[in-house]
Amino acid sequence: MPAGKIDLNADVGESFGVYTLGMDAELMPLISSANIACGFHAGDPAVMRRTVELARRAGTAVGAHPGLPDLVGFGRRAMEIGLQEIRDITAYQIGALQAVAAAQGERLQHVKPHGALYNMAVKKPEIWDAIAEVVSAIDDRLILFALAGPDRGTIEEIGRRRGIRVAFELFADRAYNADGSLVARSRPGAVIHDPAVVADKVLRFAREGRVATIEGGDIALRAETICVHGDNPEAVALVRALRETLLQAGIEIRRPAEFL
Amino acid sequence: MPAGKIDLNADVGESFGVYTLGMDAELMPLISSANIACGFHAGDPAVMRRTVELARRAGTAVGAHPGLPDLVGFGRRAMEIGLQEIRDITAYQIGALQAVAAAQGERLQHVKPHGALYNMAVKKPEIWDAIAEVVSAIDDRLILFALAGPDRGTIEEIGRRRGIRVAFELFADRAYNADGSLVARSRPGAVIHDPAVVADKVLRFAREGRVATIEGGDIALRAETICVHGDNPEAVALVRALRETLLQAGIEIRRPAEFL
Amino acid sequence: MPAGKIDLNADVGESFGVYTLGMDAELMPLISSANIACGFHAGDPAVMRRTVELARRAGTAVGAHPGLPDLVGFGRRAMEIGLQEIRDITAYQIGALQAVAAAQGERLQHVKPHGALYNMAVKKPEIWDAIAEVVSAIDDRLILFALAGPDRGTIEEIGRRRGIRVAFELFADRAYNADGSLVARSRPGAVIHDPAVVADKVLRFAREGRVATIEGGDIALRAETICVHGDNPEAVALVRALRETLLQAGIEIRRPAEFL
Amino acid sequence: MPAGKIDLNADVGESFGVYTLGMDAELMPLISSANIACGFHAGDPAVMRRTVELARRAGTAVGAHPGLPDLVGFGRRAMEIGLQEIRDITAYQIGALQAVAAAQGERLQHVKPHGALYNMAVKKPEIWDAIAEVVSAIDDRLILFALAGPDRGTIEEIGRRRGIRVAFELFADRAYNADGSLVARSRPGAVIHDPAVVADKVLRFAREGRVATIEGGDIALRAETICVHGDNPEAVALVRALRETLLQAGIEIRRPAEFL
Repeated sequence: MPAGKIDLNADVGESFGVYTLGMDAELMPLISSANIACGFHAGDPAVMRRTVELARRAGTAVGAHPGLPDLVGFGRRAMEIGLQEIRDITAYQIGALQAVAAAQGERLQHVKPHGALYNMAVKKPEIWDAIAEVVSAIDDRLILFALAGPDRGTIEEIGRRRGIRVAFELFADRAYNADGSLVARSRPGAVIHDPAVVADKVLRFAREGRVATIEGGDIALRAETICVHGDNPEAVALVRALRETLLQAGIEIRRPAEFL
Repeated sequence: MPAGKIDLNADVGESFGVYTLGMDAELMPLISSANIACGFHAGDPAVMRRTVELARRAGTAVGAHPGLPDLVGFGRRAMEIGLQEIRDITAYQIGALQAVAAAQGERLQHVKPHGALYNMAVKKPEIWDAIAEVVSAIDDRLILFALAGPDRGTIEEIGRRRGIRVAFELFADRAYNADGSLVARSRPGAVIHDPAVVADKVLRFAREGRVATIEGGDIALRAETICVHGDNPEAVALVRALRETLLQAGIEIRRPAEFL
Repeated sequence: MPAGKIDLNADVGESFGVYTLGMDAELMPLISSANIACGFHAGDPAVMRRTVELARRAGTAVGAHPGLPDLVGFGRRAMEIGLQEIRDITAYQIGALQAVAAAQGERLQHVKPHGALYNMAVKKPEIWDAIAEVVSAIDDRLILFALAGPDRGTIEEIGRRRGIRVAFELFADRAYNADGSLVARSRPGAVIHDPAVVADKVLRFAREGRVATIEGGDIALRAETICVHGDNPEAVALVRALRETLLQAGIEIRRPAEFL
Repeated sequence: MPAGKIDLNADVGESFGVYTLGMDAELMPLISSANIACGFHAGDPAVMRRTVELARRAGTAVGAHPGLPDLVGFGRRAMEIGLQEIRDITAYQIGALQAVAAAQGERLQHVKPHGALYNMAVKKPEIWDAIAEVVSAIDDRLILFALAGPDRGTIEEIGRRRGIRVAFELFADRAYNADGSLVARSRPGAVIHDPAVVADKVLRFAREGRVATIEGGDIALRAETICVHGDNPEAVALVRALRETLLQAGIEIRRPAEFL
């Protein structure tokens, strides 16, 4: 992260048909990068169009948020799926959103895999590579969002080889291990619920590039984007407060396409 | 159609998962434009990739063949669906195929709606306009395939207004009414099964721009592409024979991007 | 309707995966018959199980609410679909809910088609017959719910021929034409929003068997069940008030299996 | 297996919409138990109806073949899915087929999980128990089909506890390890392609209750049903030959409901 600039990203466009999920209209003006579901785990063509419109009006950058083909499981269940099929479903979903965006004159900034696909990539870097390969072939101006932490070097090397930029992300509400990896959700304390703690953590990271660990220590962590949520009024209030905290501290909230 | 040049188009990529439909490998070298299913009525991301590969090796132009969201009905059942949703599902599907093609360095030539969506457009020209609007916004080099016949003028005007080219198509195996419209499938004689009759009909069209009507008359018809099928060995044999007939008569089989 | 007894039915179980729709927990104790979505237009196997559980605890009768295979359109879009396929999808969905209910020791009371399938049946009585045929073959103790109004005689005859009971329903919040049919939703005044007007209308119906018409007149209408909604807090409050009004007037709210 | 009686089972009803898979019409008269896909990994309501009809005419017992919700992967890909959801999707699919069968006066004989769901159960006996629990609650006359081999005792105990019969199955074309488990498909020799070898193996099993192992030895194995395939003409010919071999050796081919 260049001094004083950070991106805020969030998953949006997760409604489907008559079903509404997330407070996209409220959240959109607060973030700088929107990860839009592409119809496999959530979203449908009409929801995608309306979500791009919301982002466009808010001046928020749009990105594809491809997931596993599992609507009933919201793409959160790991599946046995080969690298070629990961390339295929990723390309399909990115393209679908590209065209929905193009139909209103918008272009995608980034790609961030969703849910189980993201978690599978975190465990198996070949999946980052498969996704990077496809992203690069489709449009090498697209930025790949990946998890900050101990695998940064490996993923940076993948990005260089594939000729695309990578933005590494910090999770605002997740606790960290001493090696910079996320504390597993199954462990107590893995998710931070106190807005003040979240704001302090992110502010300290934005100023010093350090985050507290669950063991009580303190590590350096490099990240260019911070993942936040907008599922409910409390989550949106947290993002609003976090945004204020950052702005008051002189940190600019900018899409990574502007500083990467 | 410019003197001596015609396109042959066919629906391909209609397999899904473990299910195989159509003889794409045999058909692909015989046609000049391939209409590839995009996952809503048939096709899946892996099938789409393999179909683009087949087309690429055969030197056949690839196009999107978007359909209604109805896999179990193969996109053949009319649905109550508004113009905005038609725009949305069309954009989604075109983009999905664009990216799958881009992942192997290919670009789309054309867009042809499938099944019930095509038939709905034939009955309601606003649907051609909705599709043309989306095609134009996504990539105005894309050619829209539409039905030759009495509405040619209306659709040409849509193409001009939307800034895209339109290729009109003749159905090789369908009988025609005196006004240039297709004889409804429910009527006897609507589908021509005799390969010799099909070849004669197409050859006469290619040379003179005229087709016989079901009433026994004869009309002028303008079309730039001829729709053929590859569902079974007989269908493929018919296309092979038709192709030979055309070539021997000095007609060139060319993708419309070359002559439109 | 036997003097002093009426059924209140509502559509429930319309959530899907992570998506929540309707206030089923609040609504369930207020109604006597629950129409549970079966996975085609809404609902999934886990939602169906939880909804049967809610009904069981509330002592509410459970019924199948089969719809068209159109999740993204919530089963509200008419589709071209033959009578045999209507039999097939209806049987499939009824059976699916029967087994989910049986897994917790519950048995279905009734079947009510959903959305566009219901509306298609209202326009084309052969569809009521196709559904009645399947219901009868699966379990002739099941009660079919159908629209009260001018076609009552036709549908009663279908029920007799197929050997099943039919419960006719009045829509609490819809205006009626002079012939007893529903005022089309596209017309102003078709939906009644004022809870007091709804309560008066239903009470008058329950006492006198008459409903006011949109033209200002008054007609006799026979119905055994009243359709109410539980989509939002206002809707649930309306049902609660309506229920109180009926109980205070000495009307018993009973599942139709008890009095038909 | 009681002396001289064996069941032949095969997966059928795996077509979907316009897609045809398997030679069900040819296979059906050759087998005694038909495992019918229920719409999650293959099959649709119309295909299910037609498959039950084929079985009814052939006098073949029908059973449910529930799979994971993964049409594009044909239910062959393992998924992260909890026991409760396995109960839910199994109940749903069994019920769907029960009603489709009831609509033509047929009753189910058995339940056999499909593909990845079956393989997950083989690795994790709690899954057999979850399925047995649901089967028992829906209809305790239903027979559960499970893999013969080292876990027979565990699964028999599950059957006793849940109050249902279990038929254990031998795979006609799969090689066996010395402990009675299947040789993993990834190992060479795991699948036997020579029809004569298959017939000899099955005949020896039917007479002596023993099968050769891949290591060259010989083990006792108890099974009441033999799984065969009907995907292509060679597979059907193999079943026809196998059936003849068994009949000529005086072995009766009978549905397990008759002898279990």
